Amino acid sequence: MSVLRLKLPTDPRWVNLAEKSLEDILTDHAYCEQKAASTCISLIQQYPDKTKLVDELSPIVTEEWGHFRMVLRELKKRNLKLGRQRKDEYVNHLLKFHRKGISQEEKLLDKLLMAGLIEARSCERFKLLWQGIGDEELSEFYYKLMVAEAAHYTLFLELARTYFDADIVHTRWREWLDYEEQIMENLTPRGDRMH
Amino acid sequence: MSVLRLKLPTDPRWVNLAEKSLEDILTDHAYCEQKAASTCISLIQQYPDKTKLVDELSPIVTEEWGHFRMVLRELKKRNLKLGRQRKDEYVNHLLKFHRKGISQEEKLLDKLLMAGLIEARSCERFKLLWQGIGDEELSEFYYKLMVAEAAHYTLFLELARTYFDADIVHTRWREWLDYEEQIMENLTPRGDRMH
Repeated sequence: MSVLRLKLPTDPRWVNLAEKSLEDILTDHAYCEQKAASTCISLIQQYPDKTKLVDELSPIVTEEWGHFRMVLRELKKRNLKLGRQRKDEYVNHLLKFHRKGISQEEKLLDKLLMAGLIEARSCERFKLLWQGIGDEELSEFYYKLMVAEAAHYTLFLELARTYFDADIVHTRWREWLDYEEQIMENLTPRGDRMH
Repeated sequence: MSVLRLKLPTDPRWVNLAEKSLEDILTDHAYCEQKAASTCISLIQQYPDKTKLVDELSPIVTEEWGHFRMVLRELKKRNLKLGRQRKDEYVNHLLKFHRKGISQEEKLLDKLLMAGLIEARSCERFKLLWQGIGDEELSEFYYKLMVAEAAHYTLFLELARTYFDADIVHTRWREWLDYEEQIMENLTPRGDRMH
């Protein structure tokens, strides 16, 4: 938690809720991985001239999509079905925090920080699932994902520092952390959602 | 050509044009692979209940994105840069042929046939590049891609036959082939575009 700098830890009872709605939580998780892959694709499309960004995010797309396929396998093993994608309130709230009226170049900072923040929160949630879920195989699965997401979180912040001044990144990152804390305070924890 | 059923072969001089604008054609090609990956992702998001579709298209996303990364490497090797994505006239024309005012279930047929058609045309173009391009390494690269795209073309048509009556698929596929012939007749062949 302290490493990830998130301000509000998830209520540990969330794991018990999640465990009771495995089909829903795995479905939601699958789409989180899909959104992570799609976000990296979209960053590459928007900033093809930023070589480091393109080089670093291209393999992440493969990795995130690999996670999507791993979640599909976990569903199948348990005779559960991939459900429909639902509105992602957490992400929709985060999107409102992007600054408007700035150039496409400047917008990159918020895009990278938001991506990093989602990875950090996912990492925190995976840790809870790893430690708290009864299904041993799933627990191990979440351990692996926790490690992967922590690396992605680091990468997004590193990319932010590549293209923006360290001070600017630091200040804006603190604003994002404060904003995320408010979102988490107001979102009812749901066992059928990753966030 | 006869296997792919396309009605209008590409003017073989297109390869000479393409060879002269390698950075542009490779950039355009990279985004074709990205669009192929994104199309499969979007089909999975729209039809998560169709198990065969989800199972068959999930690995294709990984494969198409792998192609995107391969094109990036070919650019890098030659000290060329990934450029910006440009309007894809061919795809925009194809999109106009989708039937409107039908259910989401019925729309799947046009989506699968359009995807198959783009794979078929890409396959035809890769064959020309394989046979006609001077750069031996690139020629080999295009040979591999030609084989891959032919398999994808077959898969999309097979998926169409899984979810729709063979007669309906056959009739609509002929309409798509006729429509594509018209597009190709009216599109000026450009050496900086795959289509």
